[in-house]
Amino acid sequence: MSKQLDPFFHAEGIAVIGASREPGKIGHEILRSLISSGFKGKIYPVNPKYDEVLGLKCYNSVLEIPGKVDLAVFAIPARLVPRVADECGRKGVRAIVVVSGGFREAGGEGEKLQEQLVSTAEKYGMRIIGPNCIGIYNPYTGIDTFFQSHERMIRPPPGSIAFLTQSGTYGCTVLEWLAQEGIGVSKFVSYGNMADVDEAELINYLAEDPQTSLIAFYMESVKSGRRFIEAAAKASLKKPIIVLKAGRTSAGVKAALSHTGRIAGRYEVVKAALRKARVIQVETIEELYDTMKILAMAPPPKGEGLAMITNGAGPCVMAADAAEQYGVKLASYTKETVEKLREKLPPYALIGNPVDLTGSATTRDYVNAAEALLEDPNVNILALFFVFQDTPLEDEVVDEVAALKKYGKPIVAMAAGGPYTQEQVKRLQKNGIPTYPTPERLIKAVKHFTTYYLKIKQTTKIKYK
Amino acid sequence: MSKQLDPFFHAEGIAVIGASREPGKIGHEILRSLISSGFKGKIYPVNPKYDEVLGLKCYNSVLEIPGKVDLAVFAIPARLVPRVADECGRKGVRAIVVVSGGFREAGGEGEKLQEQLVSTAEKYGMRIIGPNCIGIYNPYTGIDTFFQSHERMIRPPPGSIAFLTQSGTYGCTVLEWLAQEGIGVSKFVSYGNMADVDEAELINYLAEDPQTSLIAFYMESVKSGRRFIEAAAKASLKKPIIVLKAGRTSAGVKAALSHTGRIAGRYEVVKAALRKARVIQVETIEELYDTMKILAMAPPPKGEGLAMITNGAGPCVMAADAAEQYGVKLASYTKETVEKLREKLPPYALIGNPVDLTGSATTRDYVNAAEALLEDPNVNILALFFVFQDTPLEDEVVDEVAALKKYGKPIVAMAAGGPYTQEQVKRLQKNGIPTYPTPERLIKAVKHFTTYYLKIKQTTKIKYK
Repeated sequence: MSKQLDPFFHAEGIAVIGASREPGKIGHEILRSLISSGFKGKIYPVNPKYDEVLGLKCYNSVLEIPGKVDLAVFAIPARLVPRVADECGRKGVRAIVVVSGGFREAGGEGEKLQEQLVSTAEKYGMRIIGPNCIGIYNPYTGIDTFFQSHERMIRPPPGSIAFLTQSGTYGCTVLEWLAQEGIGVSKFVSYGNMADVDEAELINYLAEDPQTSLIAFYMESVKSGRRFIEAAAKASLKKPIIVLKAGRTSAGVKAALSHTGRIAGRYEVVKAALRKARVIQVETIEELYDTMKILAMAPPPKGEGLAMITNGAGPCVMAADAAEQYGVKLASYTKETVEKLREKLPPYALIGNPVDLTGSATTRDYVNAAEALLEDPNVNILALFFVFQDTPLEDEVVDEVAALKKYGKPIVAMAAGGPYTQEQVKRLQKNGIPTYPTPERLIKAVKHFTTYYLKIKQTTKIKYK
Repeated sequence: MSKQLDPFFHAEGIAVIGASREPGKIGHEILRSLISSGFKGKIYPVNPKYDEVLGLKCYNSVLEIPGKVDLAVFAIPARLVPRVADECGRKGVRAIVVVSGGFREAGGEGEKLQEQLVSTAEKYGMRIIGPNCIGIYNPYTGIDTFFQSHERMIRPPPGSIAFLTQSGTYGCTVLEWLAQEGIGVSKFVSYGNMADVDEAELINYLAEDPQTSLIAFYMESVKSGRRFIEAAAKASLKKPIIVLKAGRTSAGVKAALSHTGRIAGRYEVVKAALRKARVIQVETIEELYDTMKILAMAPPPKGEGLAMITNGAGPCVMAADAAEQYGVKLASYTKETVEKLREKLPPYALIGNPVDLTGSATTRDYVNAAEALLEDPNVNILALFFVFQDTPLEDEVVDEVAALKKYGKPIVAMAAGGPYTQEQVKRLQKNGIPTYPTPERLIKAVKHFTTYYLKIKQTTKIKYK
């Protein structure tokens, strides 16, 4: 069953139905995206109006394409979709992505068109993603069905995060956030109205995908709650699953309905089921993104116990508040650690949790404090808070603290500010240290991260290294 | 009383005690900041070790300075501070900023030093800001006591926001966020240990300051709760006051204590008092920043009723959830408005709240929808959600929607993504439209904004235009 999804991510021949010569048109931009993302297979524009689009021979119909077509991407009006889908079936196309809207979400005629599309696909054993979506992105193969140009939307590099979304908009947002921070994805699917392929099938597929270490969802409705929960419960033993469920309130449910024509489930019911399936539940797109980052970058923690180091106290006061609020345990140090800190740090450093090195902190102070804490058995996660604006702190601090990953414990960081700070944050993350702009966002991410691994440890009785 | 604070913001002669020739040293960087921020008055470096620092004549002691000194900035070890403060008193200095730490927050000897400092200042009628702070920034006069270099920390332009903070770190963060988005400040004070000048006095001063339209605080402890609340209650009738109070939990209180040596008040008590004084209360630095932005940029709303327009539904589903959660009323349109929308928008547009123009939206669609909604008496705030990544949407949309400010109703926006989107966001904000990266952040800011103005309307019975 799962193998049926392969053509979406590994197609060798792709037809773009409704390819256009006009820049800005959806059928033009999808073609450009495939070319710009370096798709290595064959691309076949289809449009009876043209002989050639963007330097590629253009066909009147998929039936005229000489080579094999694994995947067809539709950028034509909804009313034309069922007929062309039938042609695809006859051609032997295995998978179709319908970008166009005007189906179930539009009601009336649109609902009928969606039914026709589904029955046509069933007849030929074709699989559908969409309609009403932005489709697929696989940086490993260069499959990229976005009508968002590279000029307007940057793409993340290959990596290990799979992101699945019912909202194309949030797809764009999260992919660009990842791209900007240099974090990679394995597979991306915007699945819109979910006429055929649904979340359960996507989870099953990605659970087996060796390139994927983590699966994250933005969802409004669930097609089959039971199948989804079963799939999630099985997959979550292998890799973390994060879900942002929109439509939590009656106003949200109403908005979701007109978005994809599907009813959002009752939030409390969904929540309880997800918890049982060890799914990490987040409430905003920032929280989803923040949680992705720590799970993708940091090694699993051995247990609880967060230690903080800073050169500016304010954010650690807020972090202490957030830790109590969200239930993140702050570490108590051993006597030996306190002695080591006293010995190695300058007299004005305040030794506690946080270790406050004050605005006079240097790289050496950070490294000395971090080493002492990482050697403490009570410390399982280290959080480094930086005021990079403070001039006594040398640029090198980033590389020096990155070297401390050799201790094998998760290290996270917090820093916020303008261009110089952003440059340092980029360097931290390049070095594999997930970095957050506020203490609350750091603490929530740490909470999800430790909770997931502690649950897995309990469930599987396997010691995570 | 308030006039006594003038020298901090309008000094004509400033001494930098502990001026250094060594880059990276605090006494060097403060001097450079004053020069870089274009301070037009006289700058007097003081350090017996040098004859000259950064091209300026350096003095052995303040007593040797020939001209008038209004303000002295201290960057010397705590133990030397009381003696030099006495010299400042004899010289006739009116205000001092003590950047150095090692006072009350350090306990023991430090506490005594702080007491000596205070009694010396009292003797001469000098006012103190600090110790343990980063001091003052006034872009109108170029007074800038930061030891954070311009290379590492950008400064905001002149504007109308006053930001006061017990944490220098959050000072750096908020000032750089403002600077990056081109939003200006009137006055900034990092007040650290609050040995003398406190929040109540700062509020009273800024309430009368014509350059300030909005006062925002990050605070951990309050020096005199009663005086603060009285000052806030009076000032909030004239201009909005935002407070982020850290130390909400016992862990936070502990962390705050070691930061500035002051006990954070019980949160629930503080909260109730602030509410009565019409103070806008926020819980994170992002929420503080987001609320600042809408208050600084948007005209007061005539009432409740938020209308949304989008070209991508996901964030509006989340916005609807957030609106219900935080109590932001979504507008119901009049029949006329719905008819106008039907008539002017393409058939695939989904007319509701949000008005969903879909990924095919053009600038014209946005303007048509926005005009219809702004003409509706039930709509008092308009929120524009943009997927700038979608290629059909032209660049010009920003200027076209900015022109709609002529309706006099508050307009806010949401967009999130990479470089292209950030460029558009910058343009929106340059045009006076506060723009947010997530629906939740937009909704919370709108909530604070409308709640404040509705309270004021009730209290003063004045109709806000």
